[in-house]
Amino acid sequence: MIIDRLYGEVKNKGNVCVGLDTCLDYVPDNMMDRNASVEDILFEFNKRVIDATIDIVPCYKVQIAFYEAYGLKGMSAYKKTLEYIRNNGSIVIADIKRGDISSTAQMYAKAHFEGDFESDIITLNPYMGFDSIIPYLDYVEKKDKGLFILLRTSNGGAKDIQYLNVNGNEKLYNHVGDKLKEIALKYMGRCGYSSIGAVVGGTHLEEAEEIRNRLDNMFFLIPGYGAQGGKGSDVAHYLKNGNGGVVNSSRGIITAYKKYEDGIEKFDEYIRKAALNMKEDISSGSKVL
Amino acid sequence: MIIDRLYGEVKNKGNVCVGLDTCLDYVPDNMMDRNASVEDILFEFNKRVIDATIDIVPCYKVQIAFYEAYGLKGMSAYKKTLEYIRNNGSIVIADIKRGDISSTAQMYAKAHFEGDFESDIITLNPYMGFDSIIPYLDYVEKKDKGLFILLRTSNGGAKDIQYLNVNGNEKLYNHVGDKLKEIALKYMGRCGYSSIGAVVGGTHLEEAEEIRNRLDNMFFLIPGYGAQGGKGSDVAHYLKNGNGGVVNSSRGIITAYKKYEDGIEKFDEYIRKAALNMKEDISSGSKVL
Repeated sequence: MIIDRLYGEVKNKGNVCVGLDTCLDYVPDNMMDRNASVEDILFEFNKRVIDATIDIVPCYKVQIAFYEAYGLKGMSAYKKTLEYIRNNGSIVIADIKRGDISSTAQMYAKAHFEGDFESDIITLNPYMGFDSIIPYLDYVEKKDKGLFILLRTSNGGAKDIQYLNVNGNEKLYNHVGDKLKEIALKYMGRCGYSSIGAVVGGTHLEEAEEIRNRLDNMFFLIPGYGAQGGKGSDVAHYLKNGNGGVVNSSRGIITAYKKYEDGIEKFDEYIRKAALNMKEDISSGSKVL
Repeated sequence: MIIDRLYGEVKNKGNVCVGLDTCLDYVPDNMMDRNASVEDILFEFNKRVIDATIDIVPCYKVQIAFYEAYGLKGMSAYKKTLEYIRNNGSIVIADIKRGDISSTAQMYAKAHFEGDFESDIITLNPYMGFDSIIPYLDYVEKKDKGLFILLRTSNGGAKDIQYLNVNGNEKLYNHVGDKLKEIALKYMGRCGYSSIGAVVGGTHLEEAEEIRNRLDNMFFLIPGYGAQGGKGSDVAHYLKNGNGGVVNSSRGIITAYKKYEDGIEKFDEYIRKAALNMKEDISSGSKVL
């Protein structure tokens, strides 16, 4: 199952998920060949980042919005990026946050688990209810795919809906988490986690510990590190013996070269260094606990 | 503002929104040229449907999942479909149901309000909170774009989250609706509705009346007609004097030709007839109220 593969990769390479939220503003001038198309520029940038990190990170998260923004050429760069990651033996999480009625969800499942845009794991939005998750489960079972479902996101607005008190005095994200845990139990890997995981980040420390204990069978995709403010000692609370989650950083890694005068010449080195520093930061945070 | 245009179109042409959830299963054999690409087949089918209905419906809803499912070629058919609708003077709602943090939402806004995939109105998912809506508002103000935000969807699973009791004894979708109404008030058209509308469908009749009265400044995109079970007399409860909403039907219209022996020869006629029947059904329903 995909979750066993991811668990193994985390064990060997640490918890850093490199977020490929790639836009032209992030690409150094020397990679902006005037004759190249947007498609090639975005893909070549991603290729450089992947080549510089693939032996030290367990997976990549590709945020589809950044590619949709460049239209058909962007979608072509998206396709090439997913293929490159998968062909080189790593795992790709497609951050698509889709959520729709059953007949439409079937089409999204086909879109992102087959064909041009095939990925290993996708993110989903649960607002439309649990029947909007069902069409993907066949792929989890038969094609070794995985789902990370939005539970508690790392943005300020997360409080607007996810923190509402429901059923008397329970946080909505806990209520949703409990339901997802039930579904997750049907798709357990040998590693003790399910191929149905959750997107969880940005809570206070006590809440992080509570949610980690409560959803003990769910692997977490943890956003909010770096540019969004999270530290290694914070995110460690979402992990269990250093596994059970990957921590995403996008700008903090892929624009790391911008902080150095010789950043353009040593692009690959600085990208790799940023990923290694983050890996160490999370690992130290886990040891303190 | 886009909402004034949509209001005017509804006044002249009725409430039917044709849903272009187009997949190859819906295309009649005689349109499946063996040498044509998926891109051309999907687009030519849509073009036939649009040509058969553009003078009698106010708008089209294009469900992006169906095009994503065919990869890059599907996305190319999606682009062509949006362009064809807009170039022929009609209004297109891109049913994308996106929802993400601010920096990502900015990219989605660019993706769907500019460039290859430019549409007039998009659907959004509010689960991540109201800060996930903000990046789109600049386009509402400066580029005459509109938003329909998911509130109460027409699927069974809608009850899982949207119906939860929050703040003591209030339905979650009402709580979210009240917040959206506040945002909507800043983007009011001359017609009395805002360019920030809501996706609302599938409630019981009393709830439909309550939500119509409560969100009196919001235009509704109403799913669930036809294949999903809704009738004209039901959906009329979401309208106000026959305006203030459009009712989507996808399969009920675009596969209407399948019910007739001479469906393939008279494809355009039966598509048009289905749209006209639905228009009449809703109009009769409105008169009864």
